[in-house]
Amino acid sequence: MTGRLYGVGLGPGDPELLTLKAARLIAGASVVAYPALTGGASFARSIAAGLIPAGCREIVMDVPMTVERAPAQAAYDTGAEEIAAALESGADVVCLCEGDPFFYGSFMYLFARLSGRFEVEVVPGVTSVSACSARAGRPLVARNERLTVLPGPLPGAELRERIGGAEAVAILKVGRHMAKIRGVFAELGLLDKAVYVARVGLPDEVVCPLAQAPEAAPYFSMILMNRGDDPWL
Amino acid sequence: MTGRLYGVGLGPGDPELLTLKAARLIAGASVVAYPALTGGASFARSIAAGLIPAGCREIVMDVPMTVERAPAQAAYDTGAEEIAAALESGADVVCLCEGDPFFYGSFMYLFARLSGRFEVEVVPGVTSVSACSARAGRPLVARNERLTVLPGPLPGAELRERIGGAEAVAILKVGRHMAKIRGVFAELGLLDKAVYVARVGLPDEVVCPLAQAPEAAPYFSMILMNRGDDPWL
Repeated sequence: MTGRLYGVGLGPGDPELLTLKAARLIAGASVVAYPALTGGASFARSIAAGLIPAGCREIVMDVPMTVERAPAQAAYDTGAEEIAAALESGADVVCLCEGDPFFYGSFMYLFARLSGRFEVEVVPGVTSVSACSARAGRPLVARNERLTVLPGPLPGAELRERIGGAEAVAILKVGRHMAKIRGVFAELGLLDKAVYVARVGLPDEVVCPLAQAPEAAPYFSMILMNRGDDPWL
Repeated sequence: MTGRLYGVGLGPGDPELLTLKAARLIAGASVVAYPALTGGASFARSIAAGLIPAGCREIVMDVPMTVERAPAQAAYDTGAEEIAAALESGADVVCLCEGDPFFYGSFMYLFARLSGRFEVEVVPGVTSVSACSARAGRPLVARNERLTVLPGPLPGAELRERIGGAEAVAILKVGRHMAKIRGVFAELGLLDKAVYVARVGLPDEVVCPLAQAPEAAPYFSMILMNRGDDPWL
């Protein structure tokens, strides 16, 4: 009997935002796997740290943060083979995933490599979008509103077009794209409707109007906007 | 000292998809509040049922499912006043919300009525979008892809325009709009890229290609589509 691979969403960072199912699977794991920055820390592991049992085997995938995709893909190739060997031996493997595994999550790379060969179960998690909206006290969408989710690295012209046509917007991975994105909101006259949230739920969380957001935004930062003046009444 | 109002996301239906924080707050509650269909059951309460402590006071908001908004708004007016009285007496109130409170959630109606007068904390939950994607084994968005979330009741012409311009789409509240929505996917030549998920995580869950989905879809049903042939590799 081969083992089962679990892709477990950990939520945006606060360990209390794990689901009961995620907590149960991690606490009962004999093998966990997770990505880490090369030579550095793993955000995923830090979220789950209090639940990983003593003696649990840990498969660490050192993923380089480069613009080229090949080095990261090679890291997932290696990780997938190590995970496959564990599954072949009959062990279940719990893969720790920041946020939600299928919402911009790196678990997709393992899923693509292993779901044809092994039983895989994905456990959804709270997204950073939901968490930022909650912390900012800003409802995302109500009734029949449409929501557009955009990554910050998109070109300015595309952001302008998509934000211009959108009712409610969440922009992820703001980071070093802050000046470009804020410029688009200003051009569209939407600056005063947008809020900025960085490192949601962590000790150094920031929530403020987009106009007051720092130029040097961290990678884990987001901009939320809803055009309605009071859209949920 | 007045109490604090918690808007607690319960996730899409599986009680194990509650967060640890939601479970802690519900298990420690002296007052819970939740919407119910007039004269009928409460889906929110059914998700949390195993955690509500004995002797906990329950504020039930009977919300009529009508196209006109006034009757539902009147129900939230009444519910908000009852919750306000409990908060004034010093009790915390835990409001039970299906899914995520700020993602098409009815908690917004209470938030709008009470957040100016009382301390309110929103606890985000797993959305049905994440849960459907996980159960269908279909990643939602990777890397720099854009996601468009659309409610099924939108007019066909608008759905056609927005789906036509989108890379990845989640359509909620499909229900009786199935024929219209499926027609749009067929016209756009995207039928074979779309998957249907109904009542995710519940005993009568359905996951199938959109082409095979039943004409009579339940309210809690969704269509997911990503144009990429293998977008996450």
